[in-house]
Amino acid sequence: MERTNLSMHIARAPVGLPARADFALVEEPMPQPAEGEVLFRAIYMSLDPSMRRKLPAPDGVPGPLGGTRQVGELMIAGLPPPARGYTGGFVGQVVESRHPGFAQGDLVQGGCWWQTYQVLPGDSLEQLPPGTKASEAIGLLGQHGFVAWCGMRNIGKAKPGETVLVSAAGGAIGMIAGQLAKADGARVIGIASGDKVAYVVDELGFDACIDRKNENVAVGLDRLCPDGIDVYFDNVGGDVMLAAYERMADFGRIVVCGMASEYNAPEQPFGASLRPVLRKRLRIEGFVVYDHYEAQFAQFRAEMQALIDAGRMKYRIEVIDGFAEAPAALARLLDGRNKGKVVVQLSPDRSVVT
Amino acid sequence: MERTNLSMHIARAPVGLPARADFALVEEPMPQPAEGEVLFRAIYMSLDPSMRRKLPAPDGVPGPLGGTRQVGELMIAGLPPPARGYTGGFVGQVVESRHPGFAQGDLVQGGCWWQTYQVLPGDSLEQLPPGTKASEAIGLLGQHGFVAWCGMRNIGKAKPGETVLVSAAGGAIGMIAGQLAKADGARVIGIASGDKVAYVVDELGFDACIDRKNENVAVGLDRLCPDGIDVYFDNVGGDVMLAAYERMADFGRIVVCGMASEYNAPEQPFGASLRPVLRKRLRIEGFVVYDHYEAQFAQFRAEMQALIDAGRMKYRIEVIDGFAEAPAALARLLDGRNKGKVVVQLSPDRSVVT
Repeated sequence: MERTNLSMHIARAPVGLPARADFALVEEPMPQPAEGEVLFRAIYMSLDPSMRRKLPAPDGVPGPLGGTRQVGELMIAGLPPPARGYTGGFVGQVVESRHPGFAQGDLVQGGCWWQTYQVLPGDSLEQLPPGTKASEAIGLLGQHGFVAWCGMRNIGKAKPGETVLVSAAGGAIGMIAGQLAKADGARVIGIASGDKVAYVVDELGFDACIDRKNENVAVGLDRLCPDGIDVYFDNVGGDVMLAAYERMADFGRIVVCGMASEYNAPEQPFGASLRPVLRKRLRIEGFVVYDHYEAQFAQFRAEMQALIDAGRMKYRIEVIDGFAEAPAALARLLDGRNKGKVVVQLSPDRSVVT
Repeated sequence: MERTNLSMHIARAPVGLPARADFALVEEPMPQPAEGEVLFRAIYMSLDPSMRRKLPAPDGVPGPLGGTRQVGELMIAGLPPPARGYTGGFVGQVVESRHPGFAQGDLVQGGCWWQTYQVLPGDSLEQLPPGTKASEAIGLLGQHGFVAWCGMRNIGKAKPGETVLVSAAGGAIGMIAGQLAKADGARVIGIASGDKVAYVVDELGFDACIDRKNENVAVGLDRLCPDGIDVYFDNVGGDVMLAAYERMADFGRIVVCGMASEYNAPEQPFGASLRPVLRKRLRIEGFVVYDHYEAQFAQFRAEMQALIDAGRMKYRIEVIDGFAEAPAALARLLDGRNKGKVVVQLSPDRSVVT
């Protein structure tokens, strides 16, 4: 076993997209678990656009632009304990356990610190069943799979024949949200860019996809959704949200899931009247996935596992090598230049037994 | 029986608030019912802010500012047949029936034309039970009672102890919405002006009421809702909506019921970011009452009648005398200078038997 640990601290508040120099990778002594705690080795960390909001605001004051963490502190993924393990952004393997529920070698989900080795209360970790693939646990069965499922099941509620629009369709959440809507019998249109456009249609089975770098999104929507949009699963906010809003069908639902295009910008007034909300009986609803774990995570896992087993859920993971590469990957993610779900690999994955 | 009928036609497209000169009161021959039709004498017509949108737009093109009807046409209340009677804006008495379901003297709800005597398909009228008070049928048990109930039951869903805000709290819908929320155990704050402020608190039992003419609404909300607003029942839109939106509590619901302050103005961009929808898990939802009659009107009537019988539903009606006074009353209504529910009396009410 190694003697030292790698920790990613916040070196300064980013201006615009986060950069490598906003972080400081620090070598630290191996942490030791106290009674009730577990030391685990992180294998994968989920990289999420919302991490932008964990970073401090330039003025240090928590606000729309950030501020959950301060300069000098450890960078964080997900929620710190006592939040439950399934809310964590890591999958890892237990190195040393001083908690009766865990033994060395167990595959676990949880953790929150940007550290290769993390000490956490055992009660905040989740044991993964034997045979689990770490890459699937951090992927389809992980938080962003649950996010997509919550948004579609609780707000979107696509019915057969309805038109569902998904932005960031080739992203971690979008690709799952769209496939869930397809499984529900809806016609699904994506918005993406680059090689994700072809991927979304050819591999994931979306009915069509707007290439937002090559076509004005509003024009594309007029072309592909002439009868309006019944469900808009919004991962990006901004102008794309506006274009979709203006083309909602009566009784349409807008699932406000993420605002990737706005995380890096000050809050801007919504550029349209809310009068269509009344006239078209629209619902605009936001949700935060942490609120739903307790009540719905088990149901999600069962449904998602069934879809995976039936071969009805395709998926693409982009694996980044280590913390040092994570800031650049986060910037690419915020800029929409990722390819599918982005995870950071922090140590070898030995969970895939062939 | 009279030989002539009074009909209110649209003389020109209003600019700003509607005025008497935008209408033409025409004396016409008494209409005759054909087979399956019913001739009834209107007693009360419900006057609603949304009537502004029935009037033509200045450019004659249907749009946000109006245009459902054209210059020269009959003015309309509610929906024309084949919409069902309970959607109509009148309570009246049958004068002549050529429909097996109705006899002379029956009290009915329905109708849509601004006429003292109206001929309509019997299938589009609703028979009112014997003993019904016409003023109650047009009032608490009528469309705006149902509007308040739909908004609170289907979207607002106030829980005991929650803070509910109601704008136009002394108006036809607001006074019922607030009392429904009180019946559900919520703390209810109103926004009103003039003598309605005292009425809402002293007579209707709201916990407090902001006088929007004497206090900045945002300041009043900070004072009265320091922990945020759980349910905002929006009857007015505009700046009041914005002030409420910015003070919603987590998981808050905004019931988009009406936009009285915006009916007379071009559509304006919503002056705030939608980011709090995500951060606070808000729901913003509009509804149109016509969608809910089929499924829920009977349930509404039963619940409302029980509240009336239990003395838990107070009410105030302002009675306007005849069509000629209706345009000025509509302008006062749009301007918030009405006192409670406004109805236009078109002929004597003989339904109140003492």
